[in-house]
Amino acid sequence: MTPNVDFLFDFGSPNAYLAHKVIPEIETRTGATFTYVPVLLGGLFKLTGNQPPMVAFGNIKNKMPYEQIETQRFIRRHHLTQFTFNPNFPVNTLNLMRMAVAANAMGILPRYTEAVFHHMWEAPKKMDDPAVVRAALIESGLDADALIAAAQTPAVKQELMANTEKAVEQGAFGSPTFLVGREIFFGKNTLRDVEEEILRAKAA
Amino acid sequence: MTPNVDFLFDFGSPNAYLAHKVIPEIETRTGATFTYVPVLLGGLFKLTGNQPPMVAFGNIKNKMPYEQIETQRFIRRHHLTQFTFNPNFPVNTLNLMRMAVAANAMGILPRYTEAVFHHMWEAPKKMDDPAVVRAALIESGLDADALIAAAQTPAVKQELMANTEKAVEQGAFGSPTFLVGREIFFGKNTLRDVEEEILRAKAA
Repeated sequence: MTPNVDFLFDFGSPNAYLAHKVIPEIETRTGATFTYVPVLLGGLFKLTGNQPPMVAFGNIKNKMPYEQIETQRFIRRHHLTQFTFNPNFPVNTLNLMRMAVAANAMGILPRYTEAVFHHMWEAPKKMDDPAVVRAALIESGLDADALIAAAQTPAVKQELMANTEKAVEQGAFGSPTFLVGREIFFGKNTLRDVEEEILRAKAA
Repeated sequence: MTPNVDFLFDFGSPNAYLAHKVIPEIETRTGATFTYVPVLLGGLFKLTGNQPPMVAFGNIKNKMPYEQIETQRFIRRHHLTQFTFNPNFPVNTLNLMRMAVAANAMGILPRYTEAVFHHMWEAPKKMDDPAVVRAALIESGLDADALIAAAQTPAVKQELMANTEKAVEQGAFGSPTFLVGREIFFGKNTLRDVEEEILRAKAA
């Protein structure tokens, strides 16, 4: 049986973008479909006491340069040519993630996700500026005003919070996190393990 | 050309032990020989401002349990049956690492390394107690008194410090660290990348 695979993501995480670009290859090779689950990384950090890498590791000599080396290796390995670090980093993603929940309810999460990752990490913009976000969504052919309005409904706000709390219950503490059945994997560099676990579960 | 491969290690790191157990398979598959370079993890931490995982991550919900999950996966993947967490952890390894430098000069580093990893992480002992260390080395058929004496010479002390300082210059901040030529890899979970880089360098 093909296992359930969840991809817990926040657009604010460059590593979530990089994982997102590789997921289609894994889906093709394994036959599994990844379920995109919007979570709020800032909420995950608050609930777990974790911090962004730049805060946690910024003062450790060699650590952030090593993270850069690993990122460049990942980019080369997967031939990712469009990644552009967002000069507005860190971007407050609360509204983007709420809209992701809304987009899911509207049945357009894949198109929305593709668009927002593009405007965050390929043609980077200040995606916590409401006017910039609206223009970017329209540029990508999405119904910006419907998404913006839906993001403000209590049900959407609650669902994002519930997703984030559930992620912590499942063992998450950062982004990207993958769940293959009940097996948890953290970080883009575990994608090979994720793929192996999918194949193992299918064969079991 | 087979590249130069350095394994920068400290016996106090369980992840260094786990990597040590997998290195022979990689040597067999690639034809490369790993050079074991003793470094003082406490010194690396001081020089870089890094901290042991339990200190850095101990208060982050889910983080240390996830590290345990990853360790168990590594153990299963590589069929490592002898690993036993040392109840005396953390063990002060200053003298063990100085003796590793001495053992290298005496041409017995592989036997010494095998013995100390065994007494640290297979049949774990309080390996910062001089009497315990002496008995353990004798049990393993090593010339304990020669090693203990050599560890106290200024040249050996200086070499361990120099190894540690060089590691920082090379980009290290923890254990285990691998260098394939000038490419740096951190952590036991990068061993697959280490192997790929060896094969890439051989083919280049």
